[in-house]
Amino acid sequence: MARKRQLKLGAQLHGAGASWADWRHPQAYSDASVNFGFYKQQAIQAEAGKFDFLFVADSVFITERSSPHYLNRFEPLTILSALAAVTEKIGLVGTLTVSYSEPFTVARQFASLDHISHGRAGWNIVTSWLEGSASNYSKAEHLSHDVRYRLAGEHLEVVKGLWDSWEDDAFVRNKETGEFFDKSKLHTLNHKGEFFSVKGPLNISRSKQGQPVIFQAGTSDDGRNFAARHADIIYAGHESFEETQLYYADLKKRAALYGRDPNDVFVIPNIRPIIGRTEEEAERNYQAYANLVTIENALTALGRPFNDHDFTVYPLDEPFPDLGDLGDKSNQGSSNRIKRTAKENNLTLRQTALLFSTPRSGFIGTPLQVADSIRKWFEEGAADGFIVGTGTTAALKDFVELVVPILQERGLFRTEYDHDTLRGNLGLQVPVNRNSKQSVYK
Amino acid sequence: MARKRQLKLGAQLHGAGASWADWRHPQAYSDASVNFGFYKQQAIQAEAGKFDFLFVADSVFITERSSPHYLNRFEPLTILSALAAVTEKIGLVGTLTVSYSEPFTVARQFASLDHISHGRAGWNIVTSWLEGSASNYSKAEHLSHDVRYRLAGEHLEVVKGLWDSWEDDAFVRNKETGEFFDKSKLHTLNHKGEFFSVKGPLNISRSKQGQPVIFQAGTSDDGRNFAARHADIIYAGHESFEETQLYYADLKKRAALYGRDPNDVFVIPNIRPIIGRTEEEAERNYQAYANLVTIENALTALGRPFNDHDFTVYPLDEPFPDLGDLGDKSNQGSSNRIKRTAKENNLTLRQTALLFSTPRSGFIGTPLQVADSIRKWFEEGAADGFIVGTGTTAALKDFVELVVPILQERGLFRTEYDHDTLRGNLGLQVPVNRNSKQSVYK
Repeated sequence: MARKRQLKLGAQLHGAGASWADWRHPQAYSDASVNFGFYKQQAIQAEAGKFDFLFVADSVFITERSSPHYLNRFEPLTILSALAAVTEKIGLVGTLTVSYSEPFTVARQFASLDHISHGRAGWNIVTSWLEGSASNYSKAEHLSHDVRYRLAGEHLEVVKGLWDSWEDDAFVRNKETGEFFDKSKLHTLNHKGEFFSVKGPLNISRSKQGQPVIFQAGTSDDGRNFAARHADIIYAGHESFEETQLYYADLKKRAALYGRDPNDVFVIPNIRPIIGRTEEEAERNYQAYANLVTIENALTALGRPFNDHDFTVYPLDEPFPDLGDLGDKSNQGSSNRIKRTAKENNLTLRQTALLFSTPRSGFIGTPLQVADSIRKWFEEGAADGFIVGTGTTAALKDFVELVVPILQERGLFRTEYDHDTLRGNLGLQVPVNRNSKQSVYK
Repeated sequence: MARKRQLKLGAQLHGAGASWADWRHPQAYSDASVNFGFYKQQAIQAEAGKFDFLFVADSVFITERSSPHYLNRFEPLTILSALAAVTEKIGLVGTLTVSYSEPFTVARQFASLDHISHGRAGWNIVTSWLEGSASNYSKAEHLSHDVRYRLAGEHLEVVKGLWDSWEDDAFVRNKETGEFFDKSKLHTLNHKGEFFSVKGPLNISRSKQGQPVIFQAGTSDDGRNFAARHADIIYAGHESFEETQLYYADLKKRAALYGRDPNDVFVIPNIRPIIGRTEEEAERNYQAYANLVTIENALTALGRPFNDHDFTVYPLDEPFPDLGDLGDKSNQGSSNRIKRTAKENNLTLRQTALLFSTPRSGFIGTPLQVADSIRKWFEEGAADGFIVGTGTTAALKDFVELVVPILQERGLFRTEYDHDTLRGNLGLQVPVNRNSKQSVYK
């Protein structure tokens, strides 16, 4: 009998909050983004809630106009490695850009995290949409959207090839004979492509989950194809239920077109639940967050997916301005969605900016209401699970203590970890080493 | 009254051993290089011994001829971040090459480790002498020795500049007013140099030790100048007492020529103590290690500083061959030392190879003899401390339990940590932020 489909849950760790002004919340640690004690506490809380994974976002370019939670924060690989030492079962997923990294180093650092954590690593692949990023990496210009996705495909191919350098039984370690490894089980990649030339082999072996799990958030057409083709978990920007249903169906369809079983590709929207013991308390809690954001902050935040565009030059209470193709080169998915939402709902610039800063959603309410929304999305083809972002430690605690038990009672979510690897808990197979596989067909 | 000069001690963590065949030792964990439990145990042991720091070496190119302890091992930044979470006072020093890394990423990852550990990070700068390294990083060729050192200087300048992006009091975090940071205390680097163009600012602030401590091992003329100019701690390859005295004096003199106080630059040779309760037991312990190395292993190991040169083509029992300038482009310091040692002592190839694999030294003996050697080197101008490499967990335990107490009794080494930052324990000042300093002179 096939096992009942289970929700996948990730906890996004974003230090001083998920949005512009969360750090101002009375319950927020305003230094959270560089406070290891806070990260450790959040990680332990999420593991107590039996979450599948912790998720750390990233970016590689800031200016004085960037959101506070981007300005001063831990780098993903280092903070996740530290959290590996204080957790046992929960997955550790970090964002790392292919546009400004070397496949050899990326392969090594994720493989090392995978060994340190005994098979709990995941890589969230991004292509870096902030055009300024190039200026931090000695590059003349930021690559265009389509080239970035071509590069991403080759980068990932190299990383996966390096991860398979050593067959799983390559290390003999026979003290008597002196044979440390079996030379026939070491494979040199010798990759030469459009963007990268990488010889290999990698100087670290595979962990017990084989390879780190691949995450990706594709919103544009190129992005969706990349995600459908390569990702185990597709992180979806938070949209309405109906939009997310369309996205979900589209990604599953694309995955099938790439020859994959759509049931092995999980679409996981990013949500920000705001919980109250009553509906009124939840609404007050939402307003408490929304009121922290000034219109100046909201305009600056809105500018980000449009390559830090300055929105203060437009009148606030007139219709959202016509921006032409602005944003297409940086974050095409998000910028187009904002333009579309503003147009379809006849929003002014002020309304658009405030809505973007503190989105409303079906995840504001009592624990039962939030659990009902989660079930609806999960059962009605909008989500295989969720990445839960919370503004404060208290909010994560509320979710774990009030919402998770309802999901468990309904049989939608585990009450104990079944495995100690990320792949195991997600129900994903250990990938066969490409070199072992070939040898079978010899 | 000036505080009595104290020994600096580091513990080198190298997994499956410091040399070719240590993994074969009966007490060795042969999978140690990817065994987090082993690293954690070693780290806790070294912290119990009040060591100043843990040290993790690195390299970025292997072939099937590489030494077992290079083939399959943790990457330094990730393993040190994990160890940060399970230790409290000991420094965390990792090797990272400037030749195949981006200053922005290096600055970020070390700064992140520095925050996670609350001010215990150190960076050991290397330029990567293995010529094959280029082939793992999409580069046509490995840079020549002098160019690598020029690049290293610029790389470090950029990293240090990025580390000072935020003045120490830049983060106001006033929840009432909404002021997260003081814009006048954020500094954009705008570096444009021969090798790198990096705008900045860095997206992480300084830790309580200001900046990570800089380590470097310079043996060639360029390397010595680099170390004397930039390093807080100079890691010296292990040589005889007399050679090390000369090296020590030379580095202190060079540091003074660069306008530095030679007392703020510490020269720390790498030693491998082998301890026995009696002199005979120590000799047996040495022989147990030496006998693990086959002549084939020894020849391969010898080839490494000569760009993986194949020494099997020469007769074993004739004088060490004339190699011309081979090795000058890769590891000039080590290759020249080997040539010189062989010539001065009329060694055959076999003798040279075996001596190189398992060096003899004044650090083989009873705990008292080893402590005496340490004192002699420390008091007679050969060392400010040592990086202690040990082949097995048991050997580190012996050093901590048998030798350290003698050093403590003699007042040469601390009995408790005085500080909880690496700089604090080493007696180094927190560097003033370059941007704050300028503002003082305005």
